[in-house]
Amino acid sequence: MLNVISKEEAVACVAGAAAKAKIKTETVSLPDAAGRIAAEDVRAAESLPPFDRSTVDGFAVVAADTFGSGDAIPAELTVAGECRMGELPPFSIGRGQCAAIPTGGMLPRGADAVVMVEHTERDGELCLVYAGVSPGANVVRQGDDISKGEAVVRKGTEIGVPEIAALAALGVYEIPVFKKPVVSVISTGDEIVTGTPRPGEMRDVNSFLLSALCGNMGCEAIRYGAVRDDREQIRAALESCLERSDLVLISGGSSAGTRDMTAEIIDSLGAVHFHGIAMKPGKPTIFGTAGGKLIFGLPGHPLAAYFVFRLIVSEAIRTMLGLPADQPFAKAPAAFNVPSNHGREEYLCVRRSETGEAVPLHTKSGLISVLSEADGFIRIARNTEGLKKGDTVELYRL
Amino acid sequence: MLNVISKEEAVACVAGAAAKAKIKTETVSLPDAAGRIAAEDVRAAESLPPFDRSTVDGFAVVAADTFGSGDAIPAELTVAGECRMGELPPFSIGRGQCAAIPTGGMLPRGADAVVMVEHTERDGELCLVYAGVSPGANVVRQGDDISKGEAVVRKGTEIGVPEIAALAALGVYEIPVFKKPVVSVISTGDEIVTGTPRPGEMRDVNSFLLSALCGNMGCEAIRYGAVRDDREQIRAALESCLERSDLVLISGGSSAGTRDMTAEIIDSLGAVHFHGIAMKPGKPTIFGTAGGKLIFGLPGHPLAAYFVFRLIVSEAIRTMLGLPADQPFAKAPAAFNVPSNHGREEYLCVRRSETGEAVPLHTKSGLISVLSEADGFIRIARNTEGLKKGDTVELYRL
Repeated sequence: MLNVISKEEAVACVAGAAAKAKIKTETVSLPDAAGRIAAEDVRAAESLPPFDRSTVDGFAVVAADTFGSGDAIPAELTVAGECRMGELPPFSIGRGQCAAIPTGGMLPRGADAVVMVEHTERDGELCLVYAGVSPGANVVRQGDDISKGEAVVRKGTEIGVPEIAALAALGVYEIPVFKKPVVSVISTGDEIVTGTPRPGEMRDVNSFLLSALCGNMGCEAIRYGAVRDDREQIRAALESCLERSDLVLISGGSSAGTRDMTAEIIDSLGAVHFHGIAMKPGKPTIFGTAGGKLIFGLPGHPLAAYFVFRLIVSEAIRTMLGLPADQPFAKAPAAFNVPSNHGREEYLCVRRSETGEAVPLHTKSGLISVLSEADGFIRIARNTEGLKKGDTVELYRL
Repeated sequence: MLNVISKEEAVACVAGAAAKAKIKTETVSLPDAAGRIAAEDVRAAESLPPFDRSTVDGFAVVAADTFGSGDAIPAELTVAGECRMGELPPFSIGRGQCAAIPTGGMLPRGADAVVMVEHTERDGELCLVYAGVSPGANVVRQGDDISKGEAVVRKGTEIGVPEIAALAALGVYEIPVFKKPVVSVISTGDEIVTGTPRPGEMRDVNSFLLSALCGNMGCEAIRYGAVRDDREQIRAALESCLERSDLVLISGGSSAGTRDMTAEIIDSLGAVHFHGIAMKPGKPTIFGTAGGKLIFGLPGHPLAAYFVFRLIVSEAIRTMLGLPADQPFAKAPAAFNVPSNHGREEYLCVRRSETGEAVPLHTKSGLISVLSEADGFIRIARNTEGLKKGDTVELYRL
C-alpha cells in the first residue's frame, strides 16, 4: 500500500528540492533569447526615446505662439532651420520661430510641440500655422516609452516578442538566461517494445510524450527510450541519466511490484521523499533525489503520466527556472455534475462549448486521444462535495 | 499620395500570392516534429489499443456469469489461466471460467469484462466474485482510443503534445511537415544605427522584432540588419535576400520619398501589388512579388510594423503553411468608447481588467512598451460609428 500525501504536500516537497537544484545561467545573444527565461532583471541604462521626438511631419514650434490660431488667423512664424532624421538640430528656436521636422525627428531646443504639415503653409523663411497646438502635441517625450532604470525584463519571465523589441531598442544584445534544464526520460515496462508490437505488447508513448512536454517548457529533453522491468536495467538507466541530467523521469512499471522496485533503486541511489500522491490519475508517483538531481517515477499510463507531469514535474521545473506556479487561464461554468471524489484531487479534460461552458470529455480510463480534443483541464479538489452543473471551474492549459 | 486598399483586399491579395508560393515539405523524426506544421493528413494504420485491454488488476470474466452476484452471493468461477503483460493469453475462457489479469493486460478470448481484484477471493483454481459487472466493465476495447483509418494529424495543423503521443502510440516515427519558411528581415533608415546612437539616431528594433515574430510562427528568420535609405544599398539588400528566402520584410524608410523609392525598387525586381492599406497603424505598407517570392515593405515605427506583421504578413505565412486564418481567442466587453474612425481599420492594444473587460492601453503614438503590458489587441472596423463602452470586442493574441 502506498502512503499517499496530498498534491499540495507533493508540490511543496518537489519545489523545496528543486529550489536547491537551481539551474545555472548563461548569456545568449538577443535573437537567441526568444523563449528563454531571464536569469536577472534587465534595467534600462537609458531613456527611450532618448530625445523628444516628433510623431508627424510638420513644424516644431513653441506651442504658446500658436494659441488662438485657426484657419482665418494663422500664426506667422519664421523658419529657423530644418531638423533632419538622425541629426541633433544644430540650432534652437525661440518665440516666433519654428523648424521643419520629419516624423521621428528630434525636436530642436526651445520647441515644445509640432504642428502637422497639413495645418501649415510655408513660404521661404515664413511659415503660416493654421491650427493651435498644446505643449506636447505630436511629440513623444524623452523616456515616454521606457524610463532609465526601469526593469524591461524581470528575472524569471519568459522573453517574448515585446521584451526582444525593448531590449533591441535599448541596445542590450547579450541576455542573461537560465540554462535549459536537461531532463532524461526513461520508459519502463515488459510490455513496451520499440518495434512492431505483438499481441499484448505496446509501443513506447511516454518517452515521446514526456520529452515533448519538457521541450514545451524550455528544457532540453534526452529520450533514453524503453527498458524492461528489470532491476539491473533500471538501475543502469537511472545511473546513466543522473550523470548527464538535472532531472530524470522514469515512467511505467506495469505492476505495483515494479513500482516498489523502482522506488527501492531510487532510494539506493539517493533518497525517496514520497511514493504516492492523492491525485487521480497519478496516485503511484514516486519522487526522490540523488546527488542534488531530481528523480520522478511516473505512472505508465500516458494520460496519468501527462497529468503528473503537468501538476508535479512542471512545478519542479518552474521552481528551477524561477517561474511562478502555473495559473488557470480562464474560468467557466461547469456543464455537468461530478459526484464527490473520496479524497483524491481529480483531473478532467474539458472542452469549451459554443456558449463557453466547460464540457467534460468522458473517456473510459483516460485514453490519450482525449488530449487532442480538449481545450484544457480542470481540477476537482479532494474531499469536496463534488461539482455541480453551473459551478465555476478554473481551466488550466494543456 | 497612397492609393490605399482595404485590409480585406490586402489580405486576399497577399494570400493569393502566398498560395502560389507554397512551401516545400520535408520529413522529420517524431521528436523533431513538435511545433511543426503537418504537410499531410496522417491516418492510423491500426487501432489503438490494438486489443481489448484491462484497466484494473483483477479477473477477466464472462460478464453474464457475474449478474446478480454480491457480497452475500458470490459467483463461483474456475481460474482458466493467467494473462501476463505483453503476452497473448494462450487460452480462451468460457462460461463459468475466469483468468487473472493485470492492469493493461490483454483480455483472453471469450472474456468481455474484468472484475477488480478487491471484489474477488481466489483459492487455487477457484475464484469467488463478489460483484456483478456489465459487459465492457473495466475494459478498454480495441480501437476505443484511435480507430484504424482515423486522421490523428490533419494537414495544416501544428503538431503538439497530443499529436506526438498519438503518433508514438501508432509507431509513426517519420512525419511529413512543411519546411520552415525562410524570411529575411531588413531595416532601413538613415537614422538607424547599429552602435551607440548619437542624438537624433535610433537603434534598429524592427529586424529583431520581426525576426522574433517570424520565429514564433515557425519560420527561419535571417536578420539582414539595417541599411541606409539609399537606392543601391536597398536594391542590393533586397536582391541578396530574395536569393535565399521565401519572403522578405523590409521596414522603415524615414520619409514618403524613401517609401516610394522602396516601392520603385520592388517594382523593378518584380511587381508591386499594392502600396497603402486602410489600416491604422500601418497605412504605408507595400506588397510585391519577385520570382515567386513575397516582399513586404513595412512601416518603420516598431508598433506599426508589429501590427502589419500580425495582420498582413502572418496571413501570408499561414497560407504558405496551410494554416487557417488567425482567430480571436476571447471576447470581452469594451471598457471604453472609441469615436468613429474615418475609413481605416484600427488596432488597439488592450489589457483585461479583473472583471474581464477589455481596457485600452492608451499610448501616445504607439510606443513599443505597450506590448509588454497588453493581453491582446482589438480591431475596430473601418467606417463604423465607433465603439461604445460595453460593446463586445474580440481579442486577438499578441
